[in-house]
Amino acid sequence: MHVTAEDIVSMEQRYRAHFVNSLSGFKSANLVGSVDNAGNNNLAIISSVFHLGANPPLIGMIIRPHTAPRGTFENILASGFYTINHVNADIFEKAHQTSARYRESVSEFREVGLTPESSKRHPAPYVQESRLKIGVFFCEHKTIELNGTNLIIGEIVEVLVDDSVVKEDGFIDIESLDTVAVSGLDRYHQTKALARLSYAKPHRNPERVD
Amino acid sequence: MHVTAEDIVSMEQRYRAHFVNSLSGFKSANLVGSVDNAGNNNLAIISSVFHLGANPPLIGMIIRPHTAPRGTFENILASGFYTINHVNADIFEKAHQTSARYRESVSEFREVGLTPESSKRHPAPYVQESRLKIGVFFCEHKTIELNGTNLIIGEIVEVLVDDSVVKEDGFIDIESLDTVAVSGLDRYHQTKALARLSYAKPHRNPERVD
Repeated sequence: MHVTAEDIVSMEQRYRAHFVNSLSGFKSANLVGSVDNAGNNNLAIISSVFHLGANPPLIGMIIRPHTAPRGTFENILASGFYTINHVNADIFEKAHQTSARYRESVSEFREVGLTPESSKRHPAPYVQESRLKIGVFFCEHKTIELNGTNLIIGEIVEVLVDDSVVKEDGFIDIESLDTVAVSGLDRYHQTKALARLSYAKPHRNPERVD
Repeated sequence: MHVTAEDIVSMEQRYRAHFVNSLSGFKSANLVGSVDNAGNNNLAIISSVFHLGANPPLIGMIIRPHTAPRGTFENILASGFYTINHVNADIFEKAHQTSARYRESVSEFREVGLTPESSKRHPAPYVQESRLKIGVFFCEHKTIELNGTNLIIGEIVEVLVDDSVVKEDGFIDIESLDTVAVSGLDRYHQTKALARLSYAKPHRNPERVD
């Protein structure tokens, strides 16, 4: 099947959304917690969180103007902090449900049945049921003029995770946390490890290191 | 386990790289094919490709200045095109091996044993062994000053995929292509679908749609 740019342009809108969202490969599944100036919590599932750098520890995410939670972006600008919480297989349906268009004053935590958990370091709420939680300080955003989306860049201020899953070399076994992956707009997946591979060097095949 | 920003700063460099790279969740696994002005092919595994928008069909990726393939970035600027090829479970070890520091004149295709495939639409090479291939026109790059990384933004010009995996609504079943996911710097995973969930609406639980 050979799909050209012209074919994509002429696709029905919803078909195109499913098709193009599937192309980049597997995506992370995270719940982003934030709070407004009046203390109202907001929770939104986001599949566009990605690693940006280890030193300083930076994390990025894309927020779309029309589909995505505008409340989240406004809260981040207002409070300066947000949380990123891994979605696991026990809560993926509740996590998905946060994408419904609730009214601004409504807390998605209560509507979907997840529990806010507070931090001593910042005002944004964690998701108690998540097994890997990241507190993030908002650094900057960059607008992508081509489609009006925003890249949100944050610096990690704390990480909450069970220490049994942090390996000797710093690697975190997120599969054992049952963290899920997303494909397209709406499919959720568990994972099954193939292998960890050694640091690649020319003229030597990679070795399995677990 | 409670890890603070200060703990992360004081981690040994390699430990920190493993730790922070694990935080964002599962990542896509793609091989990026490019070509220089002399016709030399370059191939690099990149775990930072992400969806940016469906209309126009945009795809983003992060290239790091020190660890990642500088040849790829230069080739993209020079030729204006690149390819993104899903890594599947049959080729993940060869894909990983492309991250070894080969000399600039060396083709990673030949070194790791993958086959370049040409397009009529653009000069960049596809990976024949990949089951989902995307041709991309380079639009722009944005430098993230906080750490010197680059966000590369491209528009999709063609997609090559077996039509049996494209569902009625446009969703592509990438799990059936055996596309893999990455966690941390070096772990590869197959996936096992939990469910597709219906579009979320307030006061209605999501339904399984497959």
